[in-house]
Amino acid sequence: MEEFNSKDIEILKKIIKNRRDIRGNRFLKKAIDKKILEDILDAANSAPSVGFSQPWKFIIIDDEETKNKIYKNFTKENNKAKKIFKDKELYPKLKLEGIKESFLNIAVFYEKNHKDILGQTSQKNVGEYSVVCAIQNMWLMARAYNIGLGWVSILKPKKVKKILNIGKDKKLIAYLTLGYVSEFLEEPELKKLNWEKKKELKDIII
Amino acid sequence: MEEFNSKDIEILKKIIKNRRDIRGNRFLKKAIDKKILEDILDAANSAPSVGFSQPWKFIIIDDEETKNKIYKNFTKENNKAKKIFKDKELYPKLKLEGIKESFLNIAVFYEKNHKDILGQTSQKNVGEYSVVCAIQNMWLMARAYNIGLGWVSILKPKKVKKILNIGKDKKLIAYLTLGYVSEFLEEPELKKLNWEKKKELKDIII
Repeated sequence: MEEFNSKDIEILKKIIKNRRDIRGNRFLKKAIDKKILEDILDAANSAPSVGFSQPWKFIIIDDEETKNKIYKNFTKENNKAKKIFKDKELYPKLKLEGIKESFLNIAVFYEKNHKDILGQTSQKNVGEYSVVCAIQNMWLMARAYNIGLGWVSILKPKKVKKILNIGKDKKLIAYLTLGYVSEFLEEPELKKLNWEKKKELKDIII
Repeated sequence: MEEFNSKDIEILKKIIKNRRDIRGNRFLKKAIDKKILEDILDAANSAPSVGFSQPWKFIIIDDEETKNKIYKNFTKENNKAKKIFKDKELYPKLKLEGIKESFLNIAVFYEKNHKDILGQTSQKNVGEYSVVCAIQNMWLMARAYNIGLGWVSILKPKKVKKILNIGKDKKLIAYLTLGYVSEFLEEPELKKLNWEKKKELKDIII
């Protein structure tokens, strides 16, 4: 049984604190080694999952044609968002994705199971939540490798599934972009730009 | 800008690989220091969140009366689950929660925002997913402190909210149990007991 010490704790804290959501203004085109990509996916595959169901599925996207189709959907969805945030001068100036600039895109799905899953009988959502735990593991492992990850949520899941030819048994949980970066900002960009304030512990504990 | 090295990567891998879902047969009653609990919550509060919305709220539960009420709901829900898994001899023998045995319980909520959130305009679920990222950060930080965490999903969210007196603006994402443990198993218990097989990378990449 592994016992961790105060140095290990400090390293994990640093990785957690220095993780950022990366967009196209920071991504570099430098290739990611296959072995490193496998380590990142292996971190996902070591996440907790309800009833040990491991309900995660990944599609690795590196071809320009698919990226362009996804980017087109982002543009459409972001044009709608611009109307929602029409009173915010900053919104249209923000770079909100790195679909084309990142080395790889990874679409992450929750796959519905045909049998009953232990622990999923009272709360159906926990299967999807297991997939999100996997994504957070990936995010941290990528950061430890000094690789950036961005979560692109301004996309219509139905459209993404159609582009990737994915059936009804799978639900899109996240569309991720992965690549080396020019820099990791010292603090989240939306904090720096005063879009939102950082919350303190007293704000989040009821 | 923090640069991590191969030793840091190895430590993160070990934390990820040695994290377990802990139930009442492993929890010890040993107290968790306030400072350590704050570090674990601070890891949650450093998670990524859509539009930097940080939509997570936590209730720390340490009184026996509340734990007993939650446990009663677990028993009710698990009796229903036993019927679903009536063909599985193993199911009723499994210890599936540690509500009363753990030092603390933590209920985690997603708080709906009254304003529009950047990045949440095309996919409403991503707010909840941010909360799950926070939970995974907590899980890893707890493990680094050699503290166990268990996610109890065999509970009716509506009932948990009623017991905790939580209104409609918040959605229960997870009910967690936290405490020192007698041991962290070498591998997930449901793998050891052959309930499910471990998936390999080839099984999870489409």
